[in-house]
Amino acid sequence: MAAPTDFLNYIDSNKDSFIDRLAKAVEIPGVSGDPARREDVFRMGDFLDAELKKYGVETKRVDIGTHTMEGEQLKLPPLVLGRIGNDSSKKTLLIYGHFDVQPAFKSDGWKYEPFKLTREDETGKLYGRGSTDDKGPIMGWVNVLEAHSKLQKPLPVNIRFCFEGMEESGSEGLDEFILEEVKKQDSWFKGVDAVCISDNYWLNTRTPCLTYGLRGIAYYKLNISGPGADLHSGVFGRMVHEPMTDLVLLMSKLVDQNGKILVPGVDEMVAPADAEEQAIYERLDYSIEDVETSAGAAIALSDNKAEVLMGRMRSPSLSLHGIEGAFYGVGAKTVIPAKVGGKFSIRLVPPQTPDNITPLVEKYLNAEFKKLGSKNKMNVEYLHGGKPWVEDHKHWSYEAARRATETIYKQTPDYTREGGSIPVTLTFAEALGVNVLLLPMGRGDDGAHSTNEKLDISNYIEGTKLLGTYLYEVEAGTKA
Amino acid sequence: MAAPTDFLNYIDSNKDSFIDRLAKAVEIPGVSGDPARREDVFRMGDFLDAELKKYGVETKRVDIGTHTMEGEQLKLPPLVLGRIGNDSSKKTLLIYGHFDVQPAFKSDGWKYEPFKLTREDETGKLYGRGSTDDKGPIMGWVNVLEAHSKLQKPLPVNIRFCFEGMEESGSEGLDEFILEEVKKQDSWFKGVDAVCISDNYWLNTRTPCLTYGLRGIAYYKLNISGPGADLHSGVFGRMVHEPMTDLVLLMSKLVDQNGKILVPGVDEMVAPADAEEQAIYERLDYSIEDVETSAGAAIALSDNKAEVLMGRMRSPSLSLHGIEGAFYGVGAKTVIPAKVGGKFSIRLVPPQTPDNITPLVEKYLNAEFKKLGSKNKMNVEYLHGGKPWVEDHKHWSYEAARRATETIYKQTPDYTREGGSIPVTLTFAEALGVNVLLLPMGRGDDGAHSTNEKLDISNYIEGTKLLGTYLYEVEAGTKA
Repeated sequence: MAAPTDFLNYIDSNKDSFIDRLAKAVEIPGVSGDPARREDVFRMGDFLDAELKKYGVETKRVDIGTHTMEGEQLKLPPLVLGRIGNDSSKKTLLIYGHFDVQPAFKSDGWKYEPFKLTREDETGKLYGRGSTDDKGPIMGWVNVLEAHSKLQKPLPVNIRFCFEGMEESGSEGLDEFILEEVKKQDSWFKGVDAVCISDNYWLNTRTPCLTYGLRGIAYYKLNISGPGADLHSGVFGRMVHEPMTDLVLLMSKLVDQNGKILVPGVDEMVAPADAEEQAIYERLDYSIEDVETSAGAAIALSDNKAEVLMGRMRSPSLSLHGIEGAFYGVGAKTVIPAKVGGKFSIRLVPPQTPDNITPLVEKYLNAEFKKLGSKNKMNVEYLHGGKPWVEDHKHWSYEAARRATETIYKQTPDYTREGGSIPVTLTFAEALGVNVLLLPMGRGDDGAHSTNEKLDISNYIEGTKLLGTYLYEVEAGTKA
Repeated sequence: MAAPTDFLNYIDSNKDSFIDRLAKAVEIPGVSGDPARREDVFRMGDFLDAELKKYGVETKRVDIGTHTMEGEQLKLPPLVLGRIGNDSSKKTLLIYGHFDVQPAFKSDGWKYEPFKLTREDETGKLYGRGSTDDKGPIMGWVNVLEAHSKLQKPLPVNIRFCFEGMEESGSEGLDEFILEEVKKQDSWFKGVDAVCISDNYWLNTRTPCLTYGLRGIAYYKLNISGPGADLHSGVFGRMVHEPMTDLVLLMSKLVDQNGKILVPGVDEMVAPADAEEQAIYERLDYSIEDVETSAGAAIALSDNKAEVLMGRMRSPSLSLHGIEGAFYGVGAKTVIPAKVGGKFSIRLVPPQTPDNITPLVEKYLNAEFKKLGSKNKMNVEYLHGGKPWVEDHKHWSYEAARRATETIYKQTPDYTREGGSIPVTLTFAEALGVNVLLLPMGRGDDGAHSTNEKLDISNYIEGTKLLGTYLYEVEAGTKA
């Protein structure tokens, strides 16, 4: 075992004070999406900065400018950078996390005050906004630093920290900073060998996981317009080409009931899983029942677990989100909407990118629209997108995380790919050209972004040990 | 010619004072849909009541109770009933109109103050909310009464009036009143031989018309639900049956690009037009260009005028209005909506009724949904509806209106059926069991319900003559 016993013992012995640390963090309601709470995001940055400094980390706050939110010009919260260790014989890891949180109001249905950490000893849970997303993980790193500082042990690796305060609001300013910073001679990221991010979750409530992939996305708006203004269906029904009739037919040709994408070439771009990859999905500790419990209904596309999980993790998917410009209210309005925009998006996996998918979508929809013989006008608008990311999960950083997980949790981790996206992952991977590991602390039922967000005490404490142990396993696995 | 010259001359000579009368009416902003304007609707009822009394009409105001609007308990405006003439040797006509109006704000894009009648002499138009819908026609009747009163001429028919103040807000309380009233021994509607309603418009700007049909409607909500709550498309895309995928496919199977209704049995229920009926549509003074001008784009379903007009007037139509519960905003939300309701309605023509159409819709959608093999839940909700109405347009009342039109406008009127519905028409037809004539005063471009609603001075003045002449033609055509 690579991690020293005194480190692990220190974590166990200081459980209550670590929970106090998380409680102090949760009490600062740094909601990045609420202009009225912006100064709390700054306060949370100050708190984190002070905690890092306390344990020997050299820090730097980076002003990344201003932005406009709800018509108000606001200062963006600073990035809090940190560095500790400069031993060229050691690996250098970059740790990313975020100190802002989602909004929360008790009246939304919280059992407890959301901005007060409530410890429920009978269930072993810590309730509070940010407990798992992402204050638990970042305080976990601070706990590791404290242990080494108090035990006067040098860290087994050099660490660079990059913490942001706008993750819940589109990470404004972060990509620009990273892309500029890496160009510098004395870049803060100089010498980084691998990146570790703790900002996602286990698949379930039982099995730790390492996450090595994220889907990308390409989001489209399919516009159909006809009449000069909305028309009355009594007067114009069966006299004119109605945009909704065209739109609904085209949208029905995008994806079938089994999730198969009907745009030619999209599904075909992805090679089937080989036996080794297939085995990963069969091994995952996640059942059809888990899928249906989290979806809230027995609506899984198949009874085959591996197939369903591959649908989420290694296949593209196409979802129809809604229609802009049509009647959406309650009641019964007899309108023929003049201009409607169907919203849909495709989740992407390698080698798909918005750039190679968009021409397929446009070509197909143009051809299908032509077949309709409609006199309406159609165009496909690409709204936004991002590339998928899949990492080498046999890299030494993943191997270190696997061994650390086996040590702390006595379990081999699940190897997962996530269906959603964490854009900074790809930015780091591309800008630094190094391996990125997603090493979650919390469980699949933590309810990040929901009411009653929680972090299990065991995940917080064992997770802190996991982070520290991972550092030792990196050292052990990369020693010459 | 049945109408006496002194009557026609009186109308011409008093043009300015008739416009003043309409101006006084337009200045009372009786918007029935705005609780803050409710007392103005009452004031408008008072004004109309006083005008009727001035010219010898016995009136009665009927309190039809209260209702709730925007959470407020409000008194419904009274019905203003009137009667003049009780000569059993004459026919008795029931005249319907409404004295409430649609909302209007100058800031919506009006050229002039909407609640001030603006006379544009260079174009011969009278602008103002209610000018054509429906204050012009009801003041037209008052003008006819004034002429006979001032000329001390007896009216050629007995008249009963029924004016309401809630037409623009669902005619609340009216049907109930009519259905109760006709049961009474001394019913206000006793002895009525025919009904005349001036509350619709010419097809175009050139040719007067008589309207003998209205389509009915059956409005549905097709509900599909699956997940317990909205899901994230990154996490759940291609794992679960998505309600939107099912809904959009089912909606695409309701109507095709040519307006053909795909629900089996619906189109088939309507017999094709025979040669005589076909000829009516070919004669109508309405071109494909007129259709496309009013729709604001070149989107007519066909180049064949009769076919397009039959689509509106004598065929059922199915329009897709929108989706409740899906993403409808601007931007790019990556939601899998949990519960969506597709709104669509079918305009009905005889022998179709909501009662005979709904089972066809339900059977078809249930069968189509079953084919999908989806694990989501589906149900079809009937929201509201009304039966279609088609009248005998060779009845003496229509013949009288035709001759009156030929006298005043020197044109044979178009015989039209309207695509929309005026529910009180059917109520009168069924409750009284007499012929109902729709005799419009305004033109197809008057913009009832729109900004810059107007009535041409010529339509107001010639229309007043038309209403009076119609009474004389009724007398002439029904004399023993």
